[in-house]
Amino acid sequence: MNAPDKNINQHPDFNKSDAAIDPNALHSFKNSKKIYVEGSHNIKVPFREISLSDTASQFGAEKNNPVVVYDTSGPYTDPGYQIDIRNGLPALRSQWILDRANVEELDGPTSNFGKERQNDPELEKMRFNLKRKPLKAKSGQNVSQMHYAKKGIITPEMEYIAIRENQRREGISEFIQTQHPGQSYGASIPKLITPEFVRDEVAKGRAIIPANINHPETEPMIIGRNFLVKINANIGNSALGSSISEEVEKMVWGTRWGADTVMDLSTGKNIHETREWIVRNSPVPIGTVPIYQALEKVDGKAEDLTWEIFKDTLIEQAEQGVDYFTIHAGVRLEYIPMTAKRMTGIVSRGGSIMAKWCLAHHKESFLYTHFEDICEIMKAYDVSFSLGDGLRPGSIYDANDEAQFAELKTLGELTKIAWKHDVQTMIEGPGHVPMHMIKENMDLQLEHCHEAPFYTLGPLTTDIAPGYDHITSGIGAAMIGWYGCAMLCYVTPKEHLGLPDKEDVREGIITYKIAAHAADLAKGHPGAQIRDNALSKARFEFRWEDQFNLSLDPEKAKEFHDETLPQEGAKQAHFCSMCGPHFCSMKITQDVREYAKEKGISEEEALKDGMEQKSIEFVKKGSEVYQKV
Amino acid sequence: MNAPDKNINQHPDFNKSDAAIDPNALHSFKNSKKIYVEGSHNIKVPFREISLSDTASQFGAEKNNPVVVYDTSGPYTDPGYQIDIRNGLPALRSQWILDRANVEELDGPTSNFGKERQNDPELEKMRFNLKRKPLKAKSGQNVSQMHYAKKGIITPEMEYIAIRENQRREGISEFIQTQHPGQSYGASIPKLITPEFVRDEVAKGRAIIPANINHPETEPMIIGRNFLVKINANIGNSALGSSISEEVEKMVWGTRWGADTVMDLSTGKNIHETREWIVRNSPVPIGTVPIYQALEKVDGKAEDLTWEIFKDTLIEQAEQGVDYFTIHAGVRLEYIPMTAKRMTGIVSRGGSIMAKWCLAHHKESFLYTHFEDICEIMKAYDVSFSLGDGLRPGSIYDANDEAQFAELKTLGELTKIAWKHDVQTMIEGPGHVPMHMIKENMDLQLEHCHEAPFYTLGPLTTDIAPGYDHITSGIGAAMIGWYGCAMLCYVTPKEHLGLPDKEDVREGIITYKIAAHAADLAKGHPGAQIRDNALSKARFEFRWEDQFNLSLDPEKAKEFHDETLPQEGAKQAHFCSMCGPHFCSMKITQDVREYAKEKGISEEEALKDGMEQKSIEFVKKGSEVYQKV
Repeated sequence: MNAPDKNINQHPDFNKSDAAIDPNALHSFKNSKKIYVEGSHNIKVPFREISLSDTASQFGAEKNNPVVVYDTSGPYTDPGYQIDIRNGLPALRSQWILDRANVEELDGPTSNFGKERQNDPELEKMRFNLKRKPLKAKSGQNVSQMHYAKKGIITPEMEYIAIRENQRREGISEFIQTQHPGQSYGASIPKLITPEFVRDEVAKGRAIIPANINHPETEPMIIGRNFLVKINANIGNSALGSSISEEVEKMVWGTRWGADTVMDLSTGKNIHETREWIVRNSPVPIGTVPIYQALEKVDGKAEDLTWEIFKDTLIEQAEQGVDYFTIHAGVRLEYIPMTAKRMTGIVSRGGSIMAKWCLAHHKESFLYTHFEDICEIMKAYDVSFSLGDGLRPGSIYDANDEAQFAELKTLGELTKIAWKHDVQTMIEGPGHVPMHMIKENMDLQLEHCHEAPFYTLGPLTTDIAPGYDHITSGIGAAMIGWYGCAMLCYVTPKEHLGLPDKEDVREGIITYKIAAHAADLAKGHPGAQIRDNALSKARFEFRWEDQFNLSLDPEKAKEFHDETLPQEGAKQAHFCSMCGPHFCSMKITQDVREYAKEKGISEEEALKDGMEQKSIEFVKKGSEVYQKV
Repeated sequence: MNAPDKNINQHPDFNKSDAAIDPNALHSFKNSKKIYVEGSHNIKVPFREISLSDTASQFGAEKNNPVVVYDTSGPYTDPGYQIDIRNGLPALRSQWILDRANVEELDGPTSNFGKERQNDPELEKMRFNLKRKPLKAKSGQNVSQMHYAKKGIITPEMEYIAIRENQRREGISEFIQTQHPGQSYGASIPKLITPEFVRDEVAKGRAIIPANINHPETEPMIIGRNFLVKINANIGNSALGSSISEEVEKMVWGTRWGADTVMDLSTGKNIHETREWIVRNSPVPIGTVPIYQALEKVDGKAEDLTWEIFKDTLIEQAEQGVDYFTIHAGVRLEYIPMTAKRMTGIVSRGGSIMAKWCLAHHKESFLYTHFEDICEIMKAYDVSFSLGDGLRPGSIYDANDEAQFAELKTLGELTKIAWKHDVQTMIEGPGHVPMHMIKENMDLQLEHCHEAPFYTLGPLTTDIAPGYDHITSGIGAAMIGWYGCAMLCYVTPKEHLGLPDKEDVREGIITYKIAAHAADLAKGHPGAQIRDNALSKARFEFRWEDQFNLSLDPEKAKEFHDETLPQEGAKQAHFCSMCGPHFCSMKITQDVREYAKEKGISEEEALKDGMEQKSIEFVKKGSEVYQKV
């Protein structure tokens, strides 16, 4: 048959002189403003400030302070920033990196493949015009954040993160702040995140700061269970014929909706060039699965892979600035037979590539045997490990089986080795797991992997809803986030069926922002509930625009509301669109409070005492409670 | 302002001679067939049988037995059934009811309102032409299923349910059957549900069978935590100008996607007539909130409500065949002040109506003071209580507060009173609750309400995602279902924003079917995993059509797949649309198995032993593993 290869990403017509992205992928949300909180070392940490309207007089004529939220969208949403993807983002970390005086500038790429691409005149028209040279640790030096952390050094990245992780809570009323204490399953999030706390968590291996020295454009962020739960969105698994501009745009689109990191899973001929454009324009850490590109280099024949080709790929990508590598080093030869009795065998692409290699050669995986060599590369650029779960279950039937947990233990051994080299490490997890088996995944991961951060795909809690796997997995993601998972890899509605388009990406990201935030609430992250409270208060006071603007997807909230009540006036209406103007339950509660206030007594007194007498007035007033706008 | 009242449901132009519903709301899913399993008393329990294609030769040339699933869609999906909504559905329970010889036929409606509507010639053109008389228990008799259960009588309804709750498992291979034992939090589901088990659960109050003797069209179903988790969909909260036909169609649409019960929340002038059409055509139990209609009768003035008007409404609806009533009898005067300090006050519409009444009169709620009178009505028709949570939290801030749990305790007291009258009872629950506070809701409900079934709305696990509240609540619904909640009331994406359209209803129902099924899996309901396993096996063997047909929404799964690979051939392709034909991780696992098989040894042996020698052949074969179709 002639099915198209959807993953060929050749875009031969792409010319960098035309490189641009659609401004619709960029603009900020209504009533949102970019603000910066300053620290030392010229640190300017971005936040999004959502301004709110005042509470109407009948509800108490209160001023509502703006709500400040974590912002992953980078300079794109700063109106003062001139966007030109041909220049890339400002290299905000460059000086910090150079100040540490432990790196050297390379003449150019040192990988064979990197050199080859660099020297190919055919590629000139699509090559990103990088005006600086790649960096590498000086011989014998280790440039990883973990290395500094273990030495007791607080880097600017750590300070930046400390500011970023604290929700700004000044000026928020008591009413809004009060929240339920969470239940944290062993995580312990301090009331105030300090730079020292960040350092300590990184030193202990409980958190990572993916921050390649060749990706100075990245705004530092942290992945660990004592911080806000993060989410990842994938790009590059994209429809036929997308251009480099489109790939960059997808990354920007993802960060606009809230992706904390982006994995570039591009395949095809020009992935090296595509990746360069993505990294140069990305305000968030970029992850890749280097074995995918290595496989391209041997024309898709897993058995032809070699350590040398893989190593060259790692260096190639590390010098471009990839922040973390998924490496399936736990797929050991002896575990492969354990998958033979599975319902769905090996579903991880990286895992099956390595399984095929191991079988073809009847040898231990070169990722495993060369693990220390890999560590040497990682620490020279500060690339973090994301140790891949090549044997993750691909169905409920296969959940929590022998193969999966055998690999997990190996990932734990490898974590110890990585830490010996001060290489930052997180662990990937499943997959497909029914609800009652999720916690075991988290508990065993913490135990076997010594509290290294966990990064899971879902998990999907049932297999029976293709087309809705963002939801089947959002359930599992929220739960495992609560149990301590540090980052959740999103799943789109197209999972198992096809390639996600822009709307699928948005739907997947919002679903995962919900899961991550629900987990933050359940863990009792300080400040997480402020946004819920502010939105609920706006809802109760019929401040519709504030309700939209505070929501994770302001545009959809407004669109849904307008379908029912399109008039502008309805957005100030003192009833909601479900009940109409004649009777509204929220309105009744308002009446209770308002009545109490008029009588000049506390609400509770109004309700408790002397109501018999006052009820006459209440009834009289009752027929006119629905105010016209 | 002139905002329209969306809830006026007058449809003055409706004429029953035109009554019909769109056949698109009716047709069955592809490769699905209605089957019936017979019992005694002419019992014929409907199921949907999904036929599957054979496994292709390279995967073992296996025959795949059909998968039989629970079917809520009623006769509409039976091709042998002639649909005419003017006649209503067959009265399948009539003989069972009459055989019990404890009912009398009434001359006509006995409620004042029912008589008035019956005698209004203006309504003739829209009145459903019911050819039988309403039934009522003979004086001194009790016709509730709980009454029979306590006497040790197994009714045909109970036998029907026993058949219905057992997934058919004959002919399903071992591979498909094996499943993970669930974790049930005190629920205990037997391997085989027997009629006696059903009776015992109903007798103990742990489950209810909503089955009004005036709704003989209903296909018996059960709500209890030792059975499959059920879901409810609401209709009647619908866009302006919908006709009676449209309301019936919405009910059919809901049951087609899997609604186990439907609540009719219609308001407006002709709700009596609308309800009649819905009940007569509904294969699932219908619930209502009678206070909504009572409020209409006093022109929306809560303070003008009286016990007499409410009582007349209960009788009116009971004689039409409503199967369960939401009654907010736990909103006691003394609890209302507890809501004054809340973020969002009272958000339940029924709760706030009663709060307003209590405040206006400074009296205890007539629902509470007349509770035993209500029981007398309920048992004369076998209407079940759904004791409403009028003080449920409307925001994360208000979750699990004093008001909520004070009411819950009262609902527990009322449950005891209802049970004294052998009236079946379930308890409604929240609402908005962060993940770590969900279990407390379930535990306290079981404790205070003596294990009566719990029926919750969500709960929503965060407030920050209007537009996605099916997801914020689907997370909570799955969890509380696992913890023991018996029925989950759906939430659509339009919640808090507007009125759901057909697609929103579908999205809401599928989300809740996912939650309910994820809960069944986690609880270890026998047979629940068969469908997951069959779908995963189909996925692994690239049987695309089977994968679509086994999914909760076959049409969306196929549509999503076809967007990427529209060719018919692609649906038999031995690669999935994510990786394309050149490399596919599932395919590699197939190769492993196939290779092992060819060598005539077990897969594990093939993998473990002598691979070095055999690897040469493997490599040789490796270059041709991608089969053309």
